[in-house]
Amino acid sequence: MKKNPQLLPRYAGIPTFMRCPYQEDLTDLDIALIGIPFDGGVTNRTGARHGPREMRNQSSLMRTINQSTGIAPFDLCSVADVGDALPDNPFELVKSHKAIEDFYHNIVKHHVMPISAGGDHSVTLPVLRALAKDAPVALVHFDAHCDTGDDYLGSKFHHGSPFKIAAEEGLIDPKKTIQIGIRGSVTDRDIWRFSYDSGMRVIHIEELYELGIKKVIEEIHQLVGDTPAYITFDVDGLDPVYAPGTGTPEIGGFTTFEAQQMIRGLDGLNIVGGDVVEVAPPFDPTGNTALTGATMMFEILCVAAKSLSKRKSA
Amino acid sequence: MKKNPQLLPRYAGIPTFMRCPYQEDLTDLDIALIGIPFDGGVTNRTGARHGPREMRNQSSLMRTINQSTGIAPFDLCSVADVGDALPDNPFELVKSHKAIEDFYHNIVKHHVMPISAGGDHSVTLPVLRALAKDAPVALVHFDAHCDTGDDYLGSKFHHGSPFKIAAEEGLIDPKKTIQIGIRGSVTDRDIWRFSYDSGMRVIHIEELYELGIKKVIEEIHQLVGDTPAYITFDVDGLDPVYAPGTGTPEIGGFTTFEAQQMIRGLDGLNIVGGDVVEVAPPFDPTGNTALTGATMMFEILCVAAKSLSKRKSA
Amino acid sequence: MKKNPQLLPRYAGIPTFMRCPYQEDLTDLDIALIGIPFDGGVTNRTGARHGPREMRNQSSLMRTINQSTGIAPFDLCSVADVGDALPDNPFELVKSHKAIEDFYHNIVKHHVMPISAGGDHSVTLPVLRALAKDAPVALVHFDAHCDTGDDYLGSKFHHGSPFKIAAEEGLIDPKKTIQIGIRGSVTDRDIWRFSYDSGMRVIHIEELYELGIKKVIEEIHQLVGDTPAYITFDVDGLDPVYAPGTGTPEIGGFTTFEAQQMIRGLDGLNIVGGDVVEVAPPFDPTGNTALTGATMMFEILCVAAKSLSKRKSA
Amino acid sequence: MKKNPQLLPRYAGIPTFMRCPYQEDLTDLDIALIGIPFDGGVTNRTGARHGPREMRNQSSLMRTINQSTGIAPFDLCSVADVGDALPDNPFELVKSHKAIEDFYHNIVKHHVMPISAGGDHSVTLPVLRALAKDAPVALVHFDAHCDTGDDYLGSKFHHGSPFKIAAEEGLIDPKKTIQIGIRGSVTDRDIWRFSYDSGMRVIHIEELYELGIKKVIEEIHQLVGDTPAYITFDVDGLDPVYAPGTGTPEIGGFTTFEAQQMIRGLDGLNIVGGDVVEVAPPFDPTGNTALTGATMMFEILCVAAKSLSKRKSA
Amino acid sequence: MKKNPQLLPRYAGIPTFMRCPYQEDLTDLDIALIGIPFDGGVTNRTGARHGPREMRNQSSLMRTINQSTGIAPFDLCSVADVGDALPDNPFELVKSHKAIEDFYHNIVKHHVMPISAGGDHSVTLPVLRALAKDAPVALVHFDAHCDTGDDYLGSKFHHGSPFKIAAEEGLIDPKKTIQIGIRGSVTDRDIWRFSYDSGMRVIHIEELYELGIKKVIEEIHQLVGDTPAYITFDVDGLDPVYAPGTGTPEIGGFTTFEAQQMIRGLDGLNIVGGDVVEVAPPFDPTGNTALTGATMMFEILCVAAKSLSKRKSA
Amino acid sequence: MKKNPQLLPRYAGIPTFMRCPYQEDLTDLDIALIGIPFDGGVTNRTGARHGPREMRNQSSLMRTINQSTGIAPFDLCSVADVGDALPDNPFELVKSHKAIEDFYHNIVKHHVMPISAGGDHSVTLPVLRALAKDAPVALVHFDAHCDTGDDYLGSKFHHGSPFKIAAEEGLIDPKKTIQIGIRGSVTDRDIWRFSYDSGMRVIHIEELYELGIKKVIEEIHQLVGDTPAYITFDVDGLDPVYAPGTGTPEIGGFTTFEAQQMIRGLDGLNIVGGDVVEVAPPFDPTGNTALTGATMMFEILCVAAKSLSKRKSA
Repeated sequence: MKKNPQLLPRYAGIPTFMRCPYQEDLTDLDIALIGIPFDGGVTNRTGARHGPREMRNQSSLMRTINQSTGIAPFDLCSVADVGDALPDNPFELVKSHKAIEDFYHNIVKHHVMPISAGGDHSVTLPVLRALAKDAPVALVHFDAHCDTGDDYLGSKFHHGSPFKIAAEEGLIDPKKTIQIGIRGSVTDRDIWRFSYDSGMRVIHIEELYELGIKKVIEEIHQLVGDTPAYITFDVDGLDPVYAPGTGTPEIGGFTTFEAQQMIRGLDGLNIVGGDVVEVAPPFDPTGNTALTGATMMFEILCVAAKSLSKRKSA
Repeated sequence: MKKNPQLLPRYAGIPTFMRCPYQEDLTDLDIALIGIPFDGGVTNRTGARHGPREMRNQSSLMRTINQSTGIAPFDLCSVADVGDALPDNPFELVKSHKAIEDFYHNIVKHHVMPISAGGDHSVTLPVLRALAKDAPVALVHFDAHCDTGDDYLGSKFHHGSPFKIAAEEGLIDPKKTIQIGIRGSVTDRDIWRFSYDSGMRVIHIEELYELGIKKVIEEIHQLVGDTPAYITFDVDGLDPVYAPGTGTPEIGGFTTFEAQQMIRGLDGLNIVGGDVVEVAPPFDPTGNTALTGATMMFEILCVAAKSLSKRKSA
Repeated sequence: MKKNPQLLPRYAGIPTFMRCPYQEDLTDLDIALIGIPFDGGVTNRTGARHGPREMRNQSSLMRTINQSTGIAPFDLCSVADVGDALPDNPFELVKSHKAIEDFYHNIVKHHVMPISAGGDHSVTLPVLRALAKDAPVALVHFDAHCDTGDDYLGSKFHHGSPFKIAAEEGLIDPKKTIQIGIRGSVTDRDIWRFSYDSGMRVIHIEELYELGIKKVIEEIHQLVGDTPAYITFDVDGLDPVYAPGTGTPEIGGFTTFEAQQMIRGLDGLNIVGGDVVEVAPPFDPTGNTALTGATMMFEILCVAAKSLSKRKSA
Repeated sequence: MKKNPQLLPRYAGIPTFMRCPYQEDLTDLDIALIGIPFDGGVTNRTGARHGPREMRNQSSLMRTINQSTGIAPFDLCSVADVGDALPDNPFELVKSHKAIEDFYHNIVKHHVMPISAGGDHSVTLPVLRALAKDAPVALVHFDAHCDTGDDYLGSKFHHGSPFKIAAEEGLIDPKKTIQIGIRGSVTDRDIWRFSYDSGMRVIHIEELYELGIKKVIEEIHQLVGDTPAYITFDVDGLDPVYAPGTGTPEIGGFTTFEAQQMIRGLDGLNIVGGDVVEVAPPFDPTGNTALTGATMMFEILCVAAKSLSKRKSA
Repeated sequence: MKKNPQLLPRYAGIPTFMRCPYQEDLTDLDIALIGIPFDGGVTNRTGARHGPREMRNQSSLMRTINQSTGIAPFDLCSVADVGDALPDNPFELVKSHKAIEDFYHNIVKHHVMPISAGGDHSVTLPVLRALAKDAPVALVHFDAHCDTGDDYLGSKFHHGSPFKIAAEEGLIDPKKTIQIGIRGSVTDRDIWRFSYDSGMRVIHIEELYELGIKKVIEEIHQLVGDTPAYITFDVDGLDPVYAPGTGTPEIGGFTTFEAQQMIRGLDGLNIVGGDVVEVAPPFDPTGNTALTGATMMFEILCVAAKSLSKRKSA
Repeated sequence: MKKNPQLLPRYAGIPTFMRCPYQEDLTDLDIALIGIPFDGGVTNRTGARHGPREMRNQSSLMRTINQSTGIAPFDLCSVADVGDALPDNPFELVKSHKAIEDFYHNIVKHHVMPISAGGDHSVTLPVLRALAKDAPVALVHFDAHCDTGDDYLGSKFHHGSPFKIAAEEGLIDPKKTIQIGIRGSVTDRDIWRFSYDSGMRVIHIEELYELGIKKVIEEIHQLVGDTPAYITFDVDGLDPVYAPGTGTPEIGGFTTFEAQQMIRGLDGLNIVGGDVVEVAPPFDPTGNTALTGATMMFEILCVAAKSLSKRKSA
């Protein structure tokens, strides 16, 4: 039992994220893997509260080295599963966001980089409130939706609006925000107007395929430069065949291969955190969505760990 | 297309509840079938917001006459699907309950009897606030849980507490409340203390099988008498093999046959409304839970329609 | 590879019924296991055409001896899977029935006893037309529905009417017909009137539980005596938790244990054939319905083989 | 409850197609959305009779404006769900087709454009008999199969032959018919000979990828010109990962993104109707096939509504 | 995060067994909850290696107090999840058993009582080799199969033979062994002869229902007395509707309610350990089998903790 | 029943591979279709033992002629399903491989070409031991993993190592071995070092997409020339959306269309056998993986039959 859990058969043991050690103590930690089991901000199908549990489960299939890029994140940084940012008042959207924010303030205070598993996309807002409290970050955003919408169902806060609020609160720099994979029908021609008006770069799925993945990666680097950057990956950016287990599926999305290429292309950015959100296990009979979410989390971890290790050694 | 939809093949047409006419006008209506697509009060697995949709779908398998009791509810009363009691602010539990309550005040104002499909069990509270605003009702309650719990996760209101609040607000008479099928592990020995202290009759599953169904029915009649009575059926009262699609399954419950016997045994009560709650379709791969929920709704409709027609003809 | 397939691990080999030899030659055969992949008579959910394939598949879990009764059917009789009674014109209900009938005339001509796997319940009619062409048989009928209905959707023939027609055509003796497990809502109070008017014994599910299984078995023996008897088992007689994969589920049915008790109780009857119908695999995600159907087929085979071997040795 | 159902949360309310008003009155209607719950023409797996119900259900995820093309079909035209074209005699293939045809004669008589949800592909034949009774239409046909086969299983009519018969009856102009996505193994080298002999343009999946989507769109426009054109979309044209819920899956098909590009490319044609067929929900555990079918129906609606509004304003 | 995990919402946190602390140090521990992810002994469907993972996951639904019996196991004893007894050589059946045995020798050496989650039933043998190395134990065995078979597929050791070998090795006292729920077809009349010849008490399912649960409990107590007793619960003893996710389902089994009654009835025995085996998650689409397995583990924990605390305070 | 089973409706009859005749006599046979129901070599999720059964079932959807290439394999060669290579000692990995090898020695002795359905990938080793006992073959290997790993879990033999051992034993020529589709995270940078050191050509998924399918096909032909070649297709080479039912899914793989193009591109090679492995039905709720596996088997059969018929006519 003293063996490295990451080298055991993958069905064995306790499912922490990527079979990292579970530790609540943040001292000397570089990167914290965190679950945010909250879906009180969804407007359609719920279930993302079960996302962290299933992503932990499926992440047992992750191994220690990225074969494609050669990055070995657990060698570069100390990484642990630090548990869940669980709201005390899950019935209250605003209070829940506050509790999540407080959890991340503690992470930030310990100079630990968070990589999180949602939860619905509304949870990225409190994460950013902690992470970007001093200066806005650049945002690399994979999604079918811009999530810069207005009030809906009587609330300013929901999973379709976090980045409007984040921009308004000065947490992200809209000029250094890029949104990739946008598509689907809409109820209002101007639903994502805020993205355009504030200067975000919006790449609809059609443009993504016209430009090609390599051009998109180039553009991300040009746009973001070395501004501290946050990566947020909504699994509904993927085509629903890769991620049926999500709240608002939109057919016609990008593939997992393309997503992996894009995340790997973020190597060189100055990454300060990331998340994978909207994995809703009740709609995922094969577990493939959670496996995909866990793999994307691993890909983000790889580029983030490399970025962090470079900063540390600088 | 002028044919009676209830006589068409069951896969055809628009799925209203039991293929009743859809009408928003409440004039001259006796019984309203209502969906309450709200699950903001659940403490574990969500998804009951999708319950009304799937119960409408599966209720196409209902026909017009109860073969066992001979009751033909659609002959006795005018029955319609009047749509959903949909909260405007689904992110706010208390506001949501208020919106649901307002919907039912309108139903009551038109002297229509509501039979509802939840939604989580917290929705029975606003229904009772409208229905029992003048005098407390008796309550016949099928469930694995007493739902008379205290504050949880920072809220007085959730799907584990409606009947404590209902009793405190004078909406139900605890002395004429009977709770059937209680079981499962608990985190607090006194979790259902309110039930006992207030005088409710609690029948645990073990006692149910010791007494037998017939004795339970007799006891209900003795307890309730001719007090106006409301029937609330949480599908988690059933064993989870009959109702896997629910938020808080507890193994070792009663069967659908036993449930049918018990509801049919309510014939003779002075019924003023009823509901079937906690059908969570995302956890119901065969659709059997929604079919079961719809059938229980039909059984409640039968005894309720007979009771109402007797009152009308009296 | 010369090993007895029935003794190999159950996931191995070609899935014939109960891993019997596949042979089209009927000479010297006692009992033929036959698939009838036809569902052109269903009025609701289709899919029973896939029943024989999946029942063959799941029947690999059958072994050679009935542990409860001690009957070893493959020792008592020569048994083979003779393939499918497949209509040439599956788009035409009446022609399809004719083709099935012709298949069974050939079975009867070779003095082979058929035990069949449907297909929808309409297929029992052509089987009986071949089997009972000289004299009516007694019928032991397990089902949620009497299947003695009138014309529906423009056709006299469908899966809700075979036994009315069979009685009218003199294929079954209604006075020696017993229907067990009847329940569900109906669209017409008189839908099963033919059963009562013609003298069939109808045991609703409520009466089944009042009498108890043993009394029901006694009554079957009194009613049928030593008249040649056919057993027809519609899996929707079972509660849908045991058989979700069927076209017209009705909650509140009997259990598989009770079904096994009843079929075993038929020991001593003069059995001339039997079938298990309405297994619809597309609605059966766990395969449990097909496993149950295959087990019921095995139970019927046991009592039928014992009956036949007694006749042969007489 | 007076709110626009298309703006409510998508799990709420009665699931008409795209949450359009349900109305049987055809007066002043531009476009009718119609279900054809009939699968009596399938040669393999059944279940498409449940297609309209599930496509209605999943179509709640549609919104009002096509974000990619900017088309707002419900602003351009009056659109309603007019219910189902349900055969009275579903057991008789030829009579069923006649009943469907009659339903569409009434649609045509009211000068309403039909956009339909099947049902198996045999139903397009009676639709065309009503729609093209005066002159042949051009046909844009997405499918894995040409569906121009000969008699099969004793019938000229089945879901593999509608376009041979339609051409023979003068309902479609084979010279203006294009079939896209053809693939799969065959039992007869000449199975689609009729397509070639009659002059249809057949684009196998290999040629589709060699040409590219844009060339295919160009060719459609060249071929069809401004002849009144009908669009028929069999979901088995898609790769089965996008549409597992269908009767005759063939691996190696096109993607939903490619399908969307192709349908959007039909903008400018003179469209007179369309359908999406062969969605078989029993084989669709995630509901993704029905969601995809509903989205394709929305895409067809967009180009059709634009075409119709141009004609009306001309 | 300092909160008691057992009081948090059940979808949150790391899924240890019943949300107990995970600790590898056995000092001062009373009861160890252990996973045995090994299914190398199955003869039919595999997958029980995934049992511990899913039982840990579903065991989050357990709470701290048994409402029916009032037992609070975590108050009576110190209980922890100590991880998995994972064989180093899973490809070798005999070596695997040895590795498992060694793990339990360590448990026993620390005077800790093990309650385990399999794995296939072959794993109970190495557990007993450690636990009963000094003297045979009594065995209370719930199962559809006696598991006292001979060599099969070239091996003496497999999941159908552990109790023959255990008796032969003097690990269990056959005269104090009771096997409950036996049923299913067999390939050899004498397959369970060893049970009878060695004096085990075998209660077939038919006898179980004739005697009734209370009589069975009485008989267990008479048979076992105060001999140290081990409880082994194979989920295939349950009817497959309660436990579809298992390797060798046999229809016609007992219910979860009956199982709970029987386990609770073991209160008063001198319990030294227990296990729940044969949960095979790949065949368990709803998760109900794992939930049931986890609940049975909790029921065993309750009676075992009470027995142990009595011994400790004696 | 004298009809060609391959021309009957696909749900009918006994599911042999591609509805070929089942025959154990190898005389005068050209090609044997063989199941290898063994998964004792897997390191993660089991279930591939059920692969042959489900691939037989789904292969009923295959027809007789490859529409794309025009090859009619059953006209070119005599093809039969000869049953399963079933180990006598499935609990012993090495003995199992020996039993499989013996089965194939018999195939080779009769000059029959085997095309097999696994089982896990470890089974290709014993197949090659029989097939290449005289001289090494070239290997065309589709997979996400090189399967040239070292000892794991105490065994040299497992499903991650067959091609290292095959090369060491002189069964394959590493210089004429090409591995296509490699990807996924690894636990050891040098895990596939043997492939590189021995001179195998390894095409990672990234290189596959950079080169394009046509270049890859060219390279295969250059590498293999006319050396006798074996084709091994592990379904985890495909993206998991096409093949969720497998033991070690790795997201980001190739599509079924691309796989078909590559296998068709093998036309012209001197093919001596092939297999499709790692189909694990318990993880395949739609059956799509087994359908895909069966189709790949058909594609391999087509190029293999053409190659064999050319050799025979030479």
